Amino acid sequence: MNITKAVITAAGAAQRTLPLQSLVDRDGVSKSALQILLEEAISAGAGDICVVVYPGDEAAYKAAAGPHVQRLKFVAQDHPRGYGDAVARARSFTGNEAFLHLVGDHLSLSRIERSCARQLVDIAGEEACAVSAVQATRESLLTNFGAIGGKRVSGRASLYAIENVLEKPTPTEAEQTLIVPGLRAGHYLCFFGMHVLTAGVMDVLERRLRDTSGTVSLSDALTALASHERYLAYEVQGARYDLGDTYGLLNAQLALALNGKDRADVLAQLLEVVASR
Amino acid sequence: MNITKAVITAAGAAQRTLPLQSLVDRDGVSKSALQILLEEAISAGAGDICVVVYPGDEAAYKAAAGPHVQRLKFVAQDHPRGYGDAVARARSFTGNEAFLHLVGDHLSLSRIERSCARQLVDIAGEEACAVSAVQATRESLLTNFGAIGGKRVSGRASLYAIENVLEKPTPTEAEQTLIVPGLRAGHYLCFFGMHVLTAGVMDVLERRLRDTSGTVSLSDALTALASHERYLAYEVQGARYDLGDTYGLLNAQLALALNGKDRADVLAQLLEVVASR
Repeated sequence: MNITKAVITAAGAAQRTLPLQSLVDRDGVSKSALQILLEEAISAGAGDICVVVYPGDEAAYKAAAGPHVQRLKFVAQDHPRGYGDAVARARSFTGNEAFLHLVGDHLSLSRIERSCARQLVDIAGEEACAVSAVQATRESLLTNFGAIGGKRVSGRASLYAIENVLEKPTPTEAEQTLIVPGLRAGHYLCFFGMHVLTAGVMDVLERRLRDTSGTVSLSDALTALASHERYLAYEVQGARYDLGDTYGLLNAQLALALNGKDRADVLAQLLEVVASR
Repeated sequence: MNITKAVITAAGAAQRTLPLQSLVDRDGVSKSALQILLEEAISAGAGDICVVVYPGDEAAYKAAAGPHVQRLKFVAQDHPRGYGDAVARARSFTGNEAFLHLVGDHLSLSRIERSCARQLVDIAGEEACAVSAVQATRESLLTNFGAIGGKRVSGRASLYAIENVLEKPTPTEAEQTLIVPGLRAGHYLCFFGMHVLTAGVMDVLERRLRDTSGTVSLSDALTALASHERYLAYEVQGARYDLGDTYGLLNAQLALALNGKDRADVLAQLLEVVASR
């Protein structure tokens, strides 16, 4: 399985300006969140990138793409019908190939040399199937994420066979269907905002979009996928930052800065701000 | 002198996206930098606001203005000829009235209950003349700011009669013309990004724009103003944050958060990020 394409979803009303926000990356260079996302995809070999945007946002996204603008294709999500619909809009771009999918409102920070997207694409290449990046997450945070249930793949650290996917489950729902043996108590495997998806996912999404006139969830389609394709979850070595949280941009910026070349300077500035109050 | 109008300049190529950046204000509410600036002007009674923008940026600025969009008028700075030109473009809006001028790439944080703009407009009202907000600034930072030379107004704390204005002076230039008696050694009074300007400034700017085909600086016009109008500098009680600095957004966000209602939570998050590395 060779991944060369990435799909970034960024059309949500509450999320569409987040990729346009300015951050200083670990290398000390000011970039848009979009540019950092594009570099994440490129680092994984998925340098041919489609962005699903709110109609009319193309120009702002082109301006925010920096040196990577030539890699971009856009699909406008008019008459939006949910997250599943947003992903399905990229079908003409992905065709029957597997692809890397990143959500436009999350940034990730790897704890190892390989980027989170690279880790995920490597696993998908080895396993030759759809893989979602996940992170063990406290029960109290379940309402923010998609979460999976499943079993550890025997003999493999950090790899799980997915049986169920629930979008923002309640603690009761999670306890009934998402317990993963071997995980720390009170923790669940939640989505990281990063997936390798197959044409099989697109097929499921397209069927659902035909069969209903309402919204189509990606989580439901992924549960269906698990019943007829091998579909894994992988705990990447890294952390995710939801830019849409109230202090999400601040947290992402601090994480980038404190893990980057300007760490010492930023720590000093930070102490000055704390002290100057 | 009754100030009801504000002019915000935001057309510079390097600055035009800064007012569109998202920050969490002291009240814990996510706002664009533009909205925070508009609320600064409104807090000073200058609720009728003209924004000088890069041509085509109007729609993005309207979207970023939040609940204050009805207060906005726009002037597009096509064929830009410098900062002085940007201010002069608002003449049809200001007419012959004095007005509050804010730069679009700075935010300020007052140390007292009244906002920095309110402090400045109050002084301008009492003194009935143009007044620039200034801050004592270390010599090493002179290259980032406009700076003034002058004398303390006798019997008045924090108030200075301006004799000279230099844009981003060298230390040598500053030492020759900008020493202000009574200031801490090695410090100069630098602009805060906030002024009350009079129709006299607009007259000077328009003359200069007629007399040259090149760029027109605001600093030069303000030096000229000082020779034929009473023109003061006022050290506001507060701090300025240049959003265009490399970590400018981070510093502004930290300052807002650590002086706002979410201080305790943000401090805790901050320690977690520092510790989790």
